[in-house]
Amino acid sequence: MSRTVYVNGEFVPEADAKVSVFDRGFLFADGVYEVTSVLGGKILDFAGHAARLERSLAELDMPMPMGADELLDIHRKLVADNGLDDGLIYLQITRGAADRDFAYPDADTPQTVVLFTQEKPGLADAPMARQGMKIISIPDERWGRRDIKTVQLLYPSMGKMMAKAAGAHDAWMVEDGHVTEGTSNNAYIVKDGTIITRHLGNEILHGITRAAVLRFAREAQMRVEERSFTLEEAAAADEAFITSASTFVMPVVELDGAPIGDGTPGPVAARLREIYLDESRKAAV
Amino acid sequence: MSRTVYVNGEFVPEADAKVSVFDRGFLFADGVYEVTSVLGGKILDFAGHAARLERSLAELDMPMPMGADELLDIHRKLVADNGLDDGLIYLQITRGAADRDFAYPDADTPQTVVLFTQEKPGLADAPMARQGMKIISIPDERWGRRDIKTVQLLYPSMGKMMAKAAGAHDAWMVEDGHVTEGTSNNAYIVKDGTIITRHLGNEILHGITRAAVLRFAREAQMRVEERSFTLEEAAAADEAFITSASTFVMPVVELDGAPIGDGTPGPVAARLREIYLDESRKAAV
Repeated sequence: MSRTVYVNGEFVPEADAKVSVFDRGFLFADGVYEVTSVLGGKILDFAGHAARLERSLAELDMPMPMGADELLDIHRKLVADNGLDDGLIYLQITRGAADRDFAYPDADTPQTVVLFTQEKPGLADAPMARQGMKIISIPDERWGRRDIKTVQLLYPSMGKMMAKAAGAHDAWMVEDGHVTEGTSNNAYIVKDGTIITRHLGNEILHGITRAAVLRFAREAQMRVEERSFTLEEAAAADEAFITSASTFVMPVVELDGAPIGDGTPGPVAARLREIYLDESRKAAV
Repeated sequence: MSRTVYVNGEFVPEADAKVSVFDRGFLFADGVYEVTSVLGGKILDFAGHAARLERSLAELDMPMPMGADELLDIHRKLVADNGLDDGLIYLQITRGAADRDFAYPDADTPQTVVLFTQEKPGLADAPMARQGMKIISIPDERWGRRDIKTVQLLYPSMGKMMAKAAGAHDAWMVEDGHVTEGTSNNAYIVKDGTIITRHLGNEILHGITRAAVLRFAREAQMRVEERSFTLEEAAAADEAFITSASTFVMPVVELDGAPIGDGTPGPVAARLREIYLDESRKAAV
C-alpha cells in the first residue's frame, strides 16, 4: 500500500514525494530532522521534539517554517491518512532549493518541509528488549556539532554497517577514550546502582528520550550521574542500555564481544523502559 | 532560460529535475560529488575527476553506476544542450532511494545520478585573480574522512557564511594549530620560494587541481613541500593561494585581517595560475 507523504504543503502518494535536485538538503546536507514515535495512533513527546527542532534550526540560522501546532496537525493527518497504529513519523526541514552555492541563499527562499510515516507493528514490544543488544565500539568520526540534529548521517550509517559486519546490532562511538553515544541513540551504563550517561554538550545529541528517562529515573529516586565514561568503565559496568525516540529504552548485553554484567538485560533498563512507556503513553497526543 | 538537467538516465528541464524524498542523499547525506570546469565548451581534468569519483564511491562501498566514458558523454551532452561555454558541471551520485534505515539498502538498489551545469561567464578571467582573496581562519569542525568527497557540506557552508559576515571571501580551517584546507579548496603558502601545502591524508580533500598544480610546479623547477603548516607560518608567509576545480589558482592577500606578504597577489600564484590554465585548456576534452 502506498503511503501518503507530506511535501511542502501537499499530501501526495509516496511515489510522487519528491524534492528538487537543487534542494540544499540533497546538495549540502543543509537540513535538520526529527523522528517521533507513534503508539496506538498517538504521538509521543511531541512538544520535546518540536522544541529541539526549533533549536536545531536556530543554530543554523533557520526559522521554524510554521508553528508547532501546525506541525502537529500534519503529524496527526499523516497518522490518520496512513492508518498508523504503531510506528514512526519522520520530519525533515531544509534551507530549500537554490542554484548551488556554499553561501546560503536569500533568506526568503522557501524552506523544504517533508514528513513521512513508517509502520512498525509492535514497536513497544520489540523482542530486543528481552534479548538485549550487542554493541561494538568504533571511533567517533563525526563533525563537531552533534547537538544539532542535521542530516549529516553518513558516519552513523557506516557505523551501523560496521556493527552488522561484526555480528552486532549497533555501535557506540568513542572519542578521546570516552563513549560519546550510539549511532542513533544515547548511551548509558549502570554501576553500583548509579546510572551514568554523558553530560550534554556539542559532542552528543540532546536526546528527547534521554531527558524524559533521566527525569523519570530521578523521580523514582535512582541515582544519576551526567558525565563522560570510558570504554573500560562500560566493560566493567553492571548493566548498560541505550535510549532513543524509536527504541525507547533498550538493554545492551554485550560490548565488543564480551558480556556486560551477567550478559542479560539488567533491572534498571527494564524498570526505566516500563516507566518511560507508561508515562509517555499517558502523555501522548 | 531553463537548464537541461540529467536525472537517472533522463535529460529534463530543471523544474522537473527531482529526486525522491527517500533518496539517501537527502536523508543521510549518503552520496558523493564532483565539480568540473568547462572553458570554451571543453571539460577540464575529466579523467582526474572520474578517478576520484570512483575512489570516493569505493570508500563508501558503492560501485560506479556507469563507466567513465558514459559519464563523459553525459557531461558533453549537457554542455551542448545548455550551450555552455564557460562554467561548471556538477555531478552527484547517491546510494539511491529506499525506506529510511541507517543500514544500507540492498546492493541492487539503483543509485541516483544527477548532473547539472552552471554558467560562469569569464570563469578563467575572474577579477579575484588580480585582487586576491581575504581569508579568515575558523576551527575545522568537519568529520574525519574529508578525503571522501561527500555531500556533508554543511560546515563548509557555515564557514563561507562566517567569512562573509567577517567581510572576507573564504575561510581556512584549522585543526591542532595547523591549517587543513579552505572550505572548498586546498590551501598553500609560499616562503622563501618554497610552496608549502598540507600532505595528503584523511584530513583534506585530495584536490584534482592540487595534484595538477603541484606537478606543474615541480616541472617548472619550483620547490614544493607537502607538509602541514601552522596559522603563524601562514601569517608570516611571503604569499598564499588556494586551488580548486572552479577557481583554478587564486591568490590570498589577507589572513584574519592582516596582509600576507605585501598584501598583493604574489608571483608564484600568478605563474601557477597561468601554467595551470594553459596546460588544462590544452588537455581539455
